[in-house]
Amino acid sequence: MKKFMNAADSVVAESLAGFVRAHEEWIVFGRARKFVRRRDLVPGKVAIISGGGSGHEPLHSGFVGPGMLDAACTGHIFTSPTPDQIVAAIEETDTGAGCLLIVKNYDGDVMNFEMAAEMAAERHRVEMVVVQDDAATGPAVRSQGRRGVAGTIVVEKLIGAAAERGAPLDTLKALGEALDPRIRSMGVALRGVVVPNNARETFALGPDEMEIGVGIHGEPGLYRTRLAPAGEIVRLLCEPVLADLDPAPGARPVLIVNGFGGTPPTELYLAYGLARDLFEAHGIVPARSLVGTFVTSLDMAGLSVTLALLSEEEFALWCAPVATPSLTW
Amino acid sequence: MKKFMNAADSVVAESLAGFVRAHEEWIVFGRARKFVRRRDLVPGKVAIISGGGSGHEPLHSGFVGPGMLDAACTGHIFTSPTPDQIVAAIEETDTGAGCLLIVKNYDGDVMNFEMAAEMAAERHRVEMVVVQDDAATGPAVRSQGRRGVAGTIVVEKLIGAAAERGAPLDTLKALGEALDPRIRSMGVALRGVVVPNNARETFALGPDEMEIGVGIHGEPGLYRTRLAPAGEIVRLLCEPVLADLDPAPGARPVLIVNGFGGTPPTELYLAYGLARDLFEAHGIVPARSLVGTFVTSLDMAGLSVTLALLSEEEFALWCAPVATPSLTW
Repeated sequence: MKKFMNAADSVVAESLAGFVRAHEEWIVFGRARKFVRRRDLVPGKVAIISGGGSGHEPLHSGFVGPGMLDAACTGHIFTSPTPDQIVAAIEETDTGAGCLLIVKNYDGDVMNFEMAAEMAAERHRVEMVVVQDDAATGPAVRSQGRRGVAGTIVVEKLIGAAAERGAPLDTLKALGEALDPRIRSMGVALRGVVVPNNARETFALGPDEMEIGVGIHGEPGLYRTRLAPAGEIVRLLCEPVLADLDPAPGARPVLIVNGFGGTPPTELYLAYGLARDLFEAHGIVPARSLVGTFVTSLDMAGLSVTLALLSEEEFALWCAPVATPSLTW
Repeated sequence: MKKFMNAADSVVAESLAGFVRAHEEWIVFGRARKFVRRRDLVPGKVAIISGGGSGHEPLHSGFVGPGMLDAACTGHIFTSPTPDQIVAAIEETDTGAGCLLIVKNYDGDVMNFEMAAEMAAERHRVEMVVVQDDAATGPAVRSQGRRGVAGTIVVEKLIGAAAERGAPLDTLKALGEALDPRIRSMGVALRGVVVPNNARETFALGPDEMEIGVGIHGEPGLYRTRLAPAGEIVRLLCEPVLADLDPAPGARPVLIVNGFGGTPPTELYLAYGLARDLFEAHGIVPARSLVGTFVTSLDMAGLSVTLALLSEEEFALWCAPVATPSLTW
């Protein structure tokens, strides 16, 4: 295991502290360092809170800022934040219009965010949206439904933009739920990941192997196959995404090629060009694209393709200004 | 070698094509795909052109846009662009105020950019600034002077901002030269890199080894040593940077922690926090920071620390608005 770290126990706290200092003009720690939040909250705006295990950075902390999240709660590596952290974030960021929690669909996350919502319910209006965009994990594969992966960026961006425009809590929750059937992702790994806590590789791949349908916690994927040219890999990712989505006429598609942490921009752009060719051959022309490292699995070599079919109004929310450490336009 | 690619010969062209399509609202190919440029050039503004081998993305193409570069010329992997490419960029982007070429200090790059400047001299005013910020390569180590590495971001950002404000060619060249003694970088690798063309690792590191003082082309570094805790690694990077710089009172330091392609945000932020502690212990408090993957060496696991000591005026140029694919504020 080769990582920049001092000790496994302190990785998360040290990394988060570095993050806050790097962006101190706009980001501060919440009470007792339980979460990070926008320095300047907007009175009367619905507070948008997300979170999850660490090891996925820049998700979610990198998306805290005007036009996206108000706070992010970070757990240990690949481990949900505690209800206590989430309650603290609710209490500190609710300026009167309530809170929306955006949660990726994993048992631990959903349980802890639900518990926090209940604990805060007496004093705060709290609603929750669960993101489940991973085409690799339909009901047939996973009884708890699809996992939440890189499509989370789309949900957080759109809801964040709508909240910034003053949309009320119910509208934001409805927006999140309406997006659910129109965002799908699929990932591939060329190397497994080593978790600092146990220094053991989550799954091992031979020099000529790749894993299709991986998640972002070192879970094994749908199947393992022989390493292939990029065009073939991209096809194996895009086809399940297309099969799951039902492209509506007039949709404004957003295409995301997301690196898992160990894959450089050169390779991501190459994969993007191939994914775009494939979608265009199916009549789907991306209206806007995002290529980069946004939702990681520590330093895993790999990437995912996300397609989001948006309405005109949703597309306008995607294009609306955002100013966070990791997404700015 | 595990990479997202179709064939070694087409890696650069395919990746660059993907890049242009991903940012097509603002970036276009220049004539015959010899370079990329801002879609909207500004008449009467000095054209800022950079370039170098590919494999360092997002440098330089990702910095094309308002407030930074007008054009970027990309060669094959770790290979200078040809004079022909650079001349084409000069011809297409010079809107009357001349061109400034920003070149990293490598023999091939300097030679080809100089040749291009001569070839274009009859019809265009062309000046050149050479970036040489690598503290690992002083005159004692390398007869051609220090290599240009991640400090290039600072030079391109400041000159780009000054050009956008209407500074004339001579002023921009003087700005670049004045910056030279005040920007230093130092890098470390945990893994060597494999170049697609020859599928061979440039240097191999054992499981407990790291290489200090590496460049961005898989060159071996100053020395190899035992993998250490992050705090110790950061010390080995920051001390030579401090030794080389002569911190002027009142300087506004910019601190950059740059990933080499295979190192995820979580680790970069952790290293940033440690670098910041170290510099602050020496009385140097960063006025602004940048943490991310900006100047890569394919998918090398590693990072570099850059410190730039800026005047008030230069710091204002750093903070000025920029809107490129990889740097926006």
